Amino acid sequence: MITCPTPLPAKDRILLGHGSGGKLSADLLRDVFLPFFRSPVLGRLDDQATLQIGAERLAFTTDSFVVKPLFFRGGDIGSLAVHGTINDLAMGGAEPLYLSAAFILEEGLSIDVLARIAESMGKAAEAAGLEIVTGDTKVVEKGKGDGVFINTTGIGRVRPGIHLSAANARQDIGFDAPIESDSAALHTLVRDMLAASPAIRCMRDPTRGGLSSAINEIAALAQVGVELNEPAIPVREVVRGACELLGFDPLYVANEGKLVAIVPPEAAAAVLAAMRNHPLGRQSAIIGAVTDKHPAMVTMKTAFGTTRIVDMLPGDQLPRIC
Amino acid sequence: MITCPTPLPAKDRILLGHGSGGKLSADLLRDVFLPFFRSPVLGRLDDQATLQIGAERLAFTTDSFVVKPLFFRGGDIGSLAVHGTINDLAMGGAEPLYLSAAFILEEGLSIDVLARIAESMGKAAEAAGLEIVTGDTKVVEKGKGDGVFINTTGIGRVRPGIHLSAANARQDIGFDAPIESDSAALHTLVRDMLAASPAIRCMRDPTRGGLSSAINEIAALAQVGVELNEPAIPVREVVRGACELLGFDPLYVANEGKLVAIVPPEAAAAVLAAMRNHPLGRQSAIIGAVTDKHPAMVTMKTAFGTTRIVDMLPGDQLPRIC
Repeated sequence: MITCPTPLPAKDRILLGHGSGGKLSADLLRDVFLPFFRSPVLGRLDDQATLQIGAERLAFTTDSFVVKPLFFRGGDIGSLAVHGTINDLAMGGAEPLYLSAAFILEEGLSIDVLARIAESMGKAAEAAGLEIVTGDTKVVEKGKGDGVFINTTGIGRVRPGIHLSAANARQDIGFDAPIESDSAALHTLVRDMLAASPAIRCMRDPTRGGLSSAINEIAALAQVGVELNEPAIPVREVVRGACELLGFDPLYVANEGKLVAIVPPEAAAAVLAAMRNHPLGRQSAIIGAVTDKHPAMVTMKTAFGTTRIVDMLPGDQLPRIC
Repeated sequence: MITCPTPLPAKDRILLGHGSGGKLSADLLRDVFLPFFRSPVLGRLDDQATLQIGAERLAFTTDSFVVKPLFFRGGDIGSLAVHGTINDLAMGGAEPLYLSAAFILEEGLSIDVLARIAESMGKAAEAAGLEIVTGDTKVVEKGKGDGVFINTTGIGRVRPGIHLSAANARQDIGFDAPIESDSAALHTLVRDMLAASPAIRCMRDPTRGGLSSAINEIAALAQVGVELNEPAIPVREVVRGACELLGFDPLYVANEGKLVAIVPPEAAAAVLAAMRNHPLGRQSAIIGAVTDKHPAMVTMKTAFGTTRIVDMLPGDQLPRIC
């Protein structure tokens, strides 16, 4: 007789959905990482840590990029890795300053492909006015990686008077969301918004898990309800068409280069005007309101006048998106 | 007729050696990354970037860990990932403050294994008195990764008056190297050394590529010669024995938890005493001297009285070491 070790049940194994930014990711963070890391800063679950070091308040954020294909319409893994971390810093109200870049390469990768990626990263960093100051390269055996994985970690400076955190969403609110443009660095848009009103409560870029996950995360963290207004959400026609064709819901589609902001009602007009004045914010709109009626739940009034619950995606809708 | 695309010549492909910290890694940095990143800070090629942000001087460093097996004698990928980045900060004379932790998981990984790694990271961070404040988790399809890859990126604070850089090695020098202990965080040893003498010129931890690569790197960056004294280099008997058995040269073996420091001769006695007083520095010794006789070349007087050139390892001696 040959014994066969019992395979682990699926629930004890990592699934693709654990990396999707949805509910499974949140479970992993809560059950596996937070109990051991025990960091109050990490426990705040913002997209970036805000740290007081001596006289300076800094934002600090990390992100790994495992996208396929490496080159795509509107960008590549290199520009995405730079924009993604810039945007996570910007969501904390920070001026992005420095990036690290760490590569995990698969043996056999074309050095020319790597050089094209490095060139794209260099250009994206230069365009955003920040420097890649430290790095690391590891190589894994063929079949133990997937071409190129990139981690970028960023440091930004938070000016006095700026305090953005999901916890702040508890206080009031209307909100704005521009849905336009592909992978782009949002920090100048954020700068203009904060100049229009430092009263902005919190921002998220709807990357993994899309708008739905970003809003659900805020609702859960701040223990507030959110009511979205579907007709007000700007979705480009081509995106809407592609989603219909593929059976996706645009609310769950990841996007690098958009943001959603929670803003006190009295500041909404000024912030919206500032956003629409910026090239990346032309399509900005007020797409919903915060309410104390159903804490931690997101609802949406549809184009047909009905109301539905907008849930967090449990796992992945698309494989390997930002 | 079926045409066959010409395969790329090996020199145009990434080899395992490109991640070894040896000569191929240096080539990749010089030829592929530096031309596009164009960062003067990165160009200094220290193990960490030193950044002036407002009133604060900070050290910033990144490292990815792709070791196999995940658990080994004296540690695991988790403790290694924490110690490695702490040590890179400490080599810049910085007090380590905060870490980010980014995971690339392979679908199917046991969540229990991940929890053991997270626990080990949490313990290592707590023991070193620093906090893991931000993180990220991505999952790749089965067969596109290798269990767990971890990136840690660290921020430390550099006190006024401390200036460590390979470029400083140009000035004088004797040096000290403790070769003892497995994966360990070296920052308290560094703190004691700097308290003994802030005149220390530069430090490196001989991880990938071992002592040989660390010294060769310093010699090349500072354009100085280095003369090592083989009998003075402390190598534990078990390590020497294992290396003989496997045909490795201990000078090239990677180690997390050791350091080599370039010290002006007049400060050597004080620094050596401070090192030997620290639990991680008991075996410290003066193992060589800097010379202007043969710039960028490392030589070693052997136990037999002969002199040989100590070259940088072109690629990997051992696969997948730290």
